Amino acid sequence: MKLSDSHEDALIQRVTQHLHQRDDVLVGPGDDCAVITQADGSLLLLKTDCVVESVHFLPEADAERVGWKALARVVSDIAAMGGTPTACVITLILRPDTSVEWLDALYSGIQRCATDFELSIVGGETSSAPPLAPNIISVAGTGSLPPQHLVKRSTSQPGDAIFVTGSLGGSIHGKHLDFTPRLEPAQWLVKHHKPSAMMDLSDGLAKDLPRLAQLSQTHYQLDLNSLPLTPSCTTQQALADGEDYELLFTLPPSLASDLQNSWPSHFPPLTQIGHMTTADSPSTPLNGGWEHFSS
Amino acid sequence: MKLSDSHEDALIQRVTQHLHQRDDVLVGPGDDCAVITQADGSLLLLKTDCVVESVHFLPEADAERVGWKALARVVSDIAAMGGTPTACVITLILRPDTSVEWLDALYSGIQRCATDFELSIVGGETSSAPPLAPNIISVAGTGSLPPQHLVKRSTSQPGDAIFVTGSLGGSIHGKHLDFTPRLEPAQWLVKHHKPSAMMDLSDGLAKDLPRLAQLSQTHYQLDLNSLPLTPSCTTQQALADGEDYELLFTLPPSLASDLQNSWPSHFPPLTQIGHMTTADSPSTPLNGGWEHFSS
Repeated sequence: MKLSDSHEDALIQRVTQHLHQRDDVLVGPGDDCAVITQADGSLLLLKTDCVVESVHFLPEADAERVGWKALARVVSDIAAMGGTPTACVITLILRPDTSVEWLDALYSGIQRCATDFELSIVGGETSSAPPLAPNIISVAGTGSLPPQHLVKRSTSQPGDAIFVTGSLGGSIHGKHLDFTPRLEPAQWLVKHHKPSAMMDLSDGLAKDLPRLAQLSQTHYQLDLNSLPLTPSCTTQQALADGEDYELLFTLPPSLASDLQNSWPSHFPPLTQIGHMTTADSPSTPLNGGWEHFSS
Repeated sequence: MKLSDSHEDALIQRVTQHLHQRDDVLVGPGDDCAVITQADGSLLLLKTDCVVESVHFLPEADAERVGWKALARVVSDIAAMGGTPTACVITLILRPDTSVEWLDALYSGIQRCATDFELSIVGGETSSAPPLAPNIISVAGTGSLPPQHLVKRSTSQPGDAIFVTGSLGGSIHGKHLDFTPRLEPAQWLVKHHKPSAMMDLSDGLAKDLPRLAQLSQTHYQLDLNSLPLTPSCTTQQALADGEDYELLFTLPPSLASDLQNSWPSHFPPLTQIGHMTTADSPSTPLNGGWEHFSS
């Protein structure tokens, strides 16, 4: 059987189900980041993510923006756990015919993101790729987190209100290279209105919300008319385009209006899009979202 | 200018010279691992490394051994700083026509290495690669380290004796997929005979010793007749083949015989191969070693 005959989530579950883990692992595979308990009781976040030419960026894309995207994706994941990014290492797998100017621009974008979000670039690796291979940038990042700020995907409850930040859909027209990781809103949330569950939207709401629901053993009802659409996008695009890099989170319904009233005006818009339900109320049918390895 | 017109070390220096770093970065790019000071004073090691099909393994290589190699390279780097590996995340960039059985075997090798060296596999990512692209496994790992055990590349002194573990050369005949990271000897060394500088040999002694010397601002004299050759290998192969994954370290000469007398018999052989010198004594000329991006 080939990977193209399998679903990505099923593949990940297949390879991660019997993994060796020490007692200090608080959150393993399946959430936005892994979480490891440190000797002093603080939490270490660890995340890896990659961008592949012709999959996550086009060959003609501006290398500076590709560099930004490569690191910003990891910042987004660390934010979605409630954490603060601290350091990252960069792996570059590049064709020998890649220009040094392209590499300079790429690092300029990585550097801009590191400066904006105050994390250190502490190392990396370069490897050559064969002539016809895509250029690849893989980023591994660490974050820190006081234990009381940790928010997982798996702890949503039936009845919780579902929120998203910003607008959804149409990322391919530019946002996927220029998005702002929602670090500040996420840190504000965990301090003031701690979500019951949270994740970042990378593969599209239609793909990511079911993941959160499944891990929480809940279902969901979406009000599809309430989705915050990017201008000129349809509801289906908002559900399925992917690469929104917005926060998706849930909150007990009794706390929802207080959150909405206190949401800072300089943050991206906040929208309630539905609520979590029990198995008695089947989930809103959703289609689409990004699938790796699909034939 | 293309990457193939540049030396790998020059490229790395070019992109890492103006990086943003916070005050908690104790060792940045250029050593076997990055080192970050934690809030409680302990040290966090961070390392990323990748194996690329047709560069680090042949398409027909046993996937289980490829998995072992992918993780063992990171364990070797953490060992070379004096640390203990704790956790890792795995990025897989695979062609859709890759078989699920290949993926299972790959993870079986990764798992075997994680179990043997007692680190946790805490997450990862999968991405599709275009049809003609190589399969790639990128591993990022963390390690822990009491501050007094830290050994860098940059702290060798003129006069220090130079040692290597094991034998050098001929890794391509199998050892590059099956090597044992020298974690136990490295941990024994930092506790009992702490080296003045240490690194692991990945690109060949001819490439790696000049790196250690340059960072330490020292030179070196090798006794080429003393190199511990892998059976049927020449001196030039021992210098230039690469992928030995042995420890290269230096020690004040007054401590050398004590080290040799107490070296545990179940460890790989220990060989003194020369000594560090000042600039008055030019380094032994060495050629070869692995170079990425070379035309």
